[in-house]
Amino acid sequence: MRIVAELQTITARHGKAARMKAGQRLKLINTHGCQVVDTWAFCDPHLSEYMSMEHSRILLFNAFARKGDTMLSNKYRQMLTLEEDNSSGWHDTMVAACSPELYREFGIDSPPHRACSLNLIEGMAGLGLEIPEQPSPWNLFQHTFIDEKGGLTYPMPEARPGCYVVLKAECDLVIAFSCCPWDHPRLPVNGPDGQINDCHFETL
Amino acid sequence: MRIVAELQTITARHGKAARMKAGQRLKLINTHGCQVVDTWAFCDPHLSEYMSMEHSRILLFNAFARKGDTMLSNKYRQMLTLEEDNSSGWHDTMVAACSPELYREFGIDSPPHRACSLNLIEGMAGLGLEIPEQPSPWNLFQHTFIDEKGGLTYPMPEARPGCYVVLKAECDLVIAFSCCPWDHPRLPVNGPDGQINDCHFETL
Repeated sequence: MRIVAELQTITARHGKAARMKAGQRLKLINTHGCQVVDTWAFCDPHLSEYMSMEHSRILLFNAFARKGDTMLSNKYRQMLTLEEDNSSGWHDTMVAACSPELYREFGIDSPPHRACSLNLIEGMAGLGLEIPEQPSPWNLFQHTFIDEKGGLTYPMPEARPGCYVVLKAECDLVIAFSCCPWDHPRLPVNGPDGQINDCHFETL
Repeated sequence: MRIVAELQTITARHGKAARMKAGQRLKLINTHGCQVVDTWAFCDPHLSEYMSMEHSRILLFNAFARKGDTMLSNKYRQMLTLEEDNSSGWHDTMVAACSPELYREFGIDSPPHRACSLNLIEGMAGLGLEIPEQPSPWNLFQHTFIDEKGGLTYPMPEARPGCYVVLKAECDLVIAFSCCPWDHPRLPVNGPDGQINDCHFETL
């Protein structure tokens, strides 16, 4: 008998967190395609140690993790390994989560716009947890291109409907996701139509 | 009569912090050349708002700030403008400050090695201040090259002796520096000889 885990929904424009035990795997599915999922991980139960982009980049010798790579904590603990990836393979580490302050910079502040930075807080609160700070996110499925002078551009996203990544927890942790609500046409990270969609995950 | 401000020393392998008022300028001199200076800025008096690499990159549309660019806080407040720069013009934003945990990863942990992450804490303590968290630093004079696949390499540093940057404070802030003690030959960010030197700064 195969035990089928429940497929969980990350509602479009919202966040969700889940606990993972060391060794456990999670499949994150880009159900409709072209949806960026901001992702964070915090050590469980000591949330002040968390997955860090600026620490991971040092030992990856790369701005991006690819299949087989492991993301590290702010103390260089192994946290999440990208075990499978049938997306375009681009997962941004360069930019902060969208926030009310960023929407204000783009002239969007009334009515208030949903934001990944707040979705992180809401997602963690769903498990009764409070985060001590806002780490920079791992923006799964977001393609940020860096040219040789450091210039950042955002090519049209290539994540096909149903593509997925499998993440393996290397320690006990809390993982948090946000289906990024960014829909400003200047940076079409979620596709040219500005459509924001649900994604799904299951533990394997 | 010209009022000459006191030239302050950032001792090799150590940190130092200073208060700046909005509009004030500071000249940071790479006295002996090839010395990376990890740099942080915190809003004064609310230190939980600080200069953020991942927020600055979004509105710079670049991984690096160059002459004329302004670094932003984690709330997109303008903090430090790079008004003058006669160095190579490369100032890394990609990698975390060196830390005891990083030295451990490179097999250096006995005796304990000095580290930028601790220099930040010491420098701020010199002003009686305690930081709420460890933001990713602006690594002045550090040349990190990013190739089109995101690969990070560290070309030999090009900062000549006596070259400098002038930073303008755009708000009241506390600036903190660390003369990076990194001397591992694998990443010769402070020059091929592993020499770590003093730097100096003055307010203008």
